[in-house]
Amino acid sequence: MTVTLGNRSAIPAPRRGSGVFERARTVTEPALRAAVDSLPPSTRRVVGYHFGWWDSKGNDRHGTPGKALRPALVLVAAEAVGGTPVGMAAVSAVPAAIPAAVAVELVHNFSLLHDDALDGDGMRRSQRSASIEFGTSAAILAGDALLALAFDVLAATAHPAAATAHPGATAHPGAATAARMLGATVAQLVEGQADERRADVHLDDCFRIAHRRTGALLECSAGLGGLFGGGTPAQIAALRGFGAELGLAAQLTDDRLRIWGGAETAHSDLRRRRRSLPVVAALAADSPSAERVAEAYGATAKLSDVDTSELAAALEADGWRDWCGTESDRHLRAALDQLDPGIPAEWRHDLRAIARLVGDRDR
Amino acid sequence: MTVTLGNRSAIPAPRRGSGVFERARTVTEPALRAAVDSLPPSTRRVVGYHFGWWDSKGNDRHGTPGKALRPALVLVAAEAVGGTPVGMAAVSAVPAAIPAAVAVELVHNFSLLHDDALDGDGMRRSQRSASIEFGTSAAILAGDALLALAFDVLAATAHPAAATAHPGATAHPGAATAARMLGATVAQLVEGQADERRADVHLDDCFRIAHRRTGALLECSAGLGGLFGGGTPAQIAALRGFGAELGLAAQLTDDRLRIWGGAETAHSDLRRRRRSLPVVAALAADSPSAERVAEAYGATAKLSDVDTSELAAALEADGWRDWCGTESDRHLRAALDQLDPGIPAEWRHDLRAIARLVGDRDR
Repeated sequence: MTVTLGNRSAIPAPRRGSGVFERARTVTEPALRAAVDSLPPSTRRVVGYHFGWWDSKGNDRHGTPGKALRPALVLVAAEAVGGTPVGMAAVSAVPAAIPAAVAVELVHNFSLLHDDALDGDGMRRSQRSASIEFGTSAAILAGDALLALAFDVLAATAHPAAATAHPGATAHPGAATAARMLGATVAQLVEGQADERRADVHLDDCFRIAHRRTGALLECSAGLGGLFGGGTPAQIAALRGFGAELGLAAQLTDDRLRIWGGAETAHSDLRRRRRSLPVVAALAADSPSAERVAEAYGATAKLSDVDTSELAAALEADGWRDWCGTESDRHLRAALDQLDPGIPAEWRHDLRAIARLVGDRDR
Repeated sequence: MTVTLGNRSAIPAPRRGSGVFERARTVTEPALRAAVDSLPPSTRRVVGYHFGWWDSKGNDRHGTPGKALRPALVLVAAEAVGGTPVGMAAVSAVPAAIPAAVAVELVHNFSLLHDDALDGDGMRRSQRSASIEFGTSAAILAGDALLALAFDVLAATAHPAAATAHPGATAHPGAATAARMLGATVAQLVEGQADERRADVHLDDCFRIAHRRTGALLECSAGLGGLFGGGTPAQIAALRGFGAELGLAAQLTDDRLRIWGGAETAHSDLRRRRRSLPVVAALAADSPSAERVAEAYGATAKLSDVDTSELAAALEADGWRDWCGTESDRHLRAALDQLDPGIPAEWRHDLRAIARLVGDRDR
């Protein structure tokens, strides 16, 4: 089964295209920078470098900003349960949900910093990773600071002073619920990072790990949006389900791009011998490419560009590139199905836009 | 100036000796174990091993429990502002403060796990450290989980369900304030861990780093105890001041023991060429031992047992061992001075006991 445009078009076109991400960045970044500014100097320097705001000496730079998928999901979920909808030009969509958008972005970047440091990855957003630039310890400690900061930002929403410090924000009764949701999510995320390092994973494990590594934080993002947008328990549960399925779709897309994507990402998972979803699926199906994958992954010598190109071609010939697309689409449809009947149809536009962008993106 | 018994006895004898630590362990451990039991399996295994509860295969073991200094400080501070005082036999001193005692112990162990992993330290509580047993990544990730869990445990105190799940606990209005206090503390702690790795520290830096590495969490512990014990803002501020001074005293004692302590710890800071407080003080004072320290710390070859013994003797001959005791006593007295007039005299017994135990301990 191959991915066809017909399949993709089952998901209605978004109302505003990728504007949901740009808007989320615009709305979230000032609050994110304010939170980071509260950190002590050594840590702040590493964090600002990691976000691409400053070079290693602390001078402003204009790096490539991150996608802001998680903040977008928080804000769009908050709107979907009755927050104030705004046009792309507005910069204050659902003020109550902004701290949650900041918190999930902080947790996401905590996990990026720790992943890079533990795996020795060299590049992040077209610059040397923080662990390469400042050393493993500094990157780990900066990640620690971001994790604590995420909870601090959520706690600030419950604090009387929050309303004064951030005009538009109000003391929110769901702050403790939000912190517990985030706490449980970090436990899942970390467990996924630990399990990912095991070699003996089967395809079921692999999907469970993908849920923990990627799905749990998207589930939490959508759930926090629902919570801070004032949703009912049923709506929050529906949004969490949406986020969880979206997470699996996002992981399948990432895994596809890290074998068959553009020049920046292509073959990267094969070079690192990562047991991504299509790789484990190929091994489990005992398809013709399985033997070649097993051989390449079992060897200890560095894989050459020729090796990885051949592997990618063999996996594609066996249909694993298409499998990624098909499976991703299936989870995107499952994500949208979660919204019925809790989220009114007229509020699903931007959630659909996010789902479509997650499936269609090419980097 | 040397440390004399006369000096020490300026601090009145404790009412109950080291019972404050034993009681804190007894009261805190069940809640700590319950919190850790909520973690997913891979992470929980590493954490339980780190705490000395299980061997690396998950079988029960009876390791040496930690000192529980931080939980003791939380509970004693809570009592000092009017919590329910209880005898040593009781196991439910100040129930409202127990989650805070668990949270600070979790944060302390997060920092131990990350320190061991980043420094490659081999032993912890008479067993191989978690980073040696399970690998650096697993230890870092387990630390991450403990950090998130600490905030989760605090958030649970604000949650209506907390009162049901933990009989005796009640939903606490200070939960968000507590989370913010802990968030700021972790930022300090991490900054201290980062700065400690710099080579160019002066004595002032060294005391500031000691405050961040050790003082900040003791300040937070005493402050959280005051908060959950229902103290006034002035009482909470007094307790925080007590904890901060106690932290410097504790660091000076640790630094003394890690050069001149018993067989387990003696010379350990010299072997690792750690720029601890007495070492930096000796270098700053340009005392006769300074040249030998500079030489030994500047060399790249591993220091032999003879080298470290000679260095320890040279530093002691210059008075730096006594300096640690004198300075520690000074900070202990400053700690007790903080309690005047906020904490009534009859409630200071156990705070004095902790201060005395921190200064007098020999391991």
